[in-house]
Amino acid sequence: MNILIRNILAVLPDGERVVDVCVSGDRIASVDSVPQGFVPDRTIEGSGRLLIPGLVNAHSHAYMTVFRNCADDLTFSDWLFGRISPMEDQLTGEDCYWSTKLACAEMLLTGTTAYYDMGIFMEEAAQAVVDTGIRGVLSRGLSGAPDGADGPNPRLDQARRLYENWKPYPTLSFMIAPHAPYSCTTDYMKQAADAARSLGLGLSIHLSESASEMDSIREQHGCTPIELADRCGLLTERTVVAHCVYATDEDIALLKRRGTSVATNPVSNMKLANGFAPVTKMLKAGVNVALGTDGSSSNNALNMFRDLACLTLIHKGNEHDPLAVTARQAFRMATANGARALCLEDLGEIRCGAKADLVVIDLDRPNMQPVNDPVAALCYSATGYETEHVIVNGVPVVLDGRLPDTDMEEIYAHVKQTCERIGTVR
Amino acid sequence: MNILIRNILAVLPDGERVVDVCVSGDRIASVDSVPQGFVPDRTIEGSGRLLIPGLVNAHSHAYMTVFRNCADDLTFSDWLFGRISPMEDQLTGEDCYWSTKLACAEMLLTGTTAYYDMGIFMEEAAQAVVDTGIRGVLSRGLSGAPDGADGPNPRLDQARRLYENWKPYPTLSFMIAPHAPYSCTTDYMKQAADAARSLGLGLSIHLSESASEMDSIREQHGCTPIELADRCGLLTERTVVAHCVYATDEDIALLKRRGTSVATNPVSNMKLANGFAPVTKMLKAGVNVALGTDGSSSNNALNMFRDLACLTLIHKGNEHDPLAVTARQAFRMATANGARALCLEDLGEIRCGAKADLVVIDLDRPNMQPVNDPVAALCYSATGYETEHVIVNGVPVVLDGRLPDTDMEEIYAHVKQTCERIGTVR
Repeated sequence: MNILIRNILAVLPDGERVVDVCVSGDRIASVDSVPQGFVPDRTIEGSGRLLIPGLVNAHSHAYMTVFRNCADDLTFSDWLFGRISPMEDQLTGEDCYWSTKLACAEMLLTGTTAYYDMGIFMEEAAQAVVDTGIRGVLSRGLSGAPDGADGPNPRLDQARRLYENWKPYPTLSFMIAPHAPYSCTTDYMKQAADAARSLGLGLSIHLSESASEMDSIREQHGCTPIELADRCGLLTERTVVAHCVYATDEDIALLKRRGTSVATNPVSNMKLANGFAPVTKMLKAGVNVALGTDGSSSNNALNMFRDLACLTLIHKGNEHDPLAVTARQAFRMATANGARALCLEDLGEIRCGAKADLVVIDLDRPNMQPVNDPVAALCYSATGYETEHVIVNGVPVVLDGRLPDTDMEEIYAHVKQTCERIGTVR
Repeated sequence: MNILIRNILAVLPDGERVVDVCVSGDRIASVDSVPQGFVPDRTIEGSGRLLIPGLVNAHSHAYMTVFRNCADDLTFSDWLFGRISPMEDQLTGEDCYWSTKLACAEMLLTGTTAYYDMGIFMEEAAQAVVDTGIRGVLSRGLSGAPDGADGPNPRLDQARRLYENWKPYPTLSFMIAPHAPYSCTTDYMKQAADAARSLGLGLSIHLSESASEMDSIREQHGCTPIELADRCGLLTERTVVAHCVYATDEDIALLKRRGTSVATNPVSNMKLANGFAPVTKMLKAGVNVALGTDGSSSNNALNMFRDLACLTLIHKGNEHDPLAVTARQAFRMATANGARALCLEDLGEIRCGAKADLVVIDLDRPNMQPVNDPVAALCYSATGYETEHVIVNGVPVVLDGRLPDTDMEEIYAHVKQTCERIGTVR
């Protein structure tokens, strides 16, 4: 399909200016002007609008959307062990399909075109991702010990099968995801690193999220979680580490040496009272820092624009530095840095030849006027629901703020049924 | 006008339940059931919706909306003296009318029904408030010395005239507003306190916003800004103090003794790198703490839902306490506490006899589903643009997410003209 986006203010790698953008197949065919002979199948008029690269959510658990607002204002252990875990044990694959579909719809409608997902019923999640049209980087969360060591553990096999089953889909890619050093044995983490290498896949893991994790890993292994992950071969150039709230200066230097990316999750880290990650230190050290929402049970939205605002604001407040994280830095973290963290090539910038993951933002909204600085507006003023059109891999997925091929009421009804069965309402 | 809101889940003072709410004239005539003989002129169906008391924005400067996103990621002095002040000097009354109108539209469309405004051309602001239909608590910002002491100072006379000219309007009320102890002489602050007493009006002032303010007041007066304001007679039961980021334990005890309210502005305090106010300490001390956005030049939105999310999140993160500010506390701060801070009687709760300032929220949005806990959803998941209908003082002002009597394009065009003239785009 050929798409022409005409006369639109665009956020380009070198600044903002009014351009014509042509999409052909899954790629951006031109920026600035229309090539001779280009015949669009669809034309989007850009007046009063802003074109941005689609946002990349570098960390989430889409199946947890069913838990949204069901366990708030609780201590971490009351939240996880008292509320979330017992309900999670009751989830079926079908529950996860509908919960993931709701998550993907929310992300697309708020300008996210690609996301990372660590989950449990990933075959069903893959189906939901394909059905909504978002780009997904999917992984089966791994926990426990290697298969057979303490009994059966099918998770790594499920991860391999997920990759084999779904790799033909152009909008899906895959990672190997040991959950965390407190939920996996070191042998299992090593096995995961080996599996990623042999499959040619990237890796994702939660590290240094909470003070209690730091204490327990130090006690058990005599090092930080980041150092332990490195000993297990998990820190590679194709690894994205979620959280790093308690990363030490040495940890940050190690991440930089390994070329490992970080996904910071500011809203989740605040909500679970873990604090503020050393994002400015990591940026200064040259670590590739991306932005994630984490799951809806600790956020409680999958709206990258809200997290973009928090990312720019909280570090200014925490460090008493109005330049701690600037709007332009944050926007890059939510786009190009995210693509790099998730091993998504040719994504995260509007340039000729890049994959066509594009978002058209309506500027004729009271909170976006006047348009003094469009990138600042994206970070400090937008809510996400200014998203008008979304193109993923060259395909229009959101039109006029709606998903034309998705029945939202059907999703809400299924999710409600799950909630009633597992008891999310106290 | 009689309005029936039928079969709606409502956030009531004692919890959430499905009710019928009747509005008659400017008041809520009934909650729970429809009185015999009540004939509605308009009926709103409540299925799939949530009824909340309108949000109260306890601190803002609406005329500054024209500066939105024009001076970000700057140090405080570059922001204020390098950018904002020179542009502010060029503003006319007509500029402030349109800028205030844009602010009021943004607030109404995101569920704010009442707001506090400290500004410069307040006759024009009052007109904009009346024209959009929001409830406004208006004040001429006072700075300098008493009239004649160092030359003419017409501001207090303007404040008196504003009150005299506009007091017949039922949706307008007024405060006397010395700007801050660093911008007013102590004589002028005392004169302002006297004027408020003689007119029977409340007071508003900025106090203890920045570390440099603390230092300069300590150096000049040997006390904290809050102590200095008290010496000038400004801390009363009808006073709302903005910011208090650097309030000491003694300051907090003093505010409590005086029955003075605080308007915390979490987004503005982060954005200008001032830090996090001791909100949890103030709440524990029993101080009435309300929530404000501050102006669009330091936020950069006037969307109370965004600030509600930040209010619940940042203190959890900063204090490593997931219960630091709960969703229910925060929602009360954004409604009933705000009404009390602004001396607005019978406002901030849905109860029989209260003023009818009501907001209908659409729950059939992806970010609001599933509905596990509606108050948590308002704080942690909503963006503000779920606002479907807004009633102010018994009058429907927003219908189906739109202001039917306001031409938004006209506002945008006028604001753009101002921006071009004063040079907001760098």
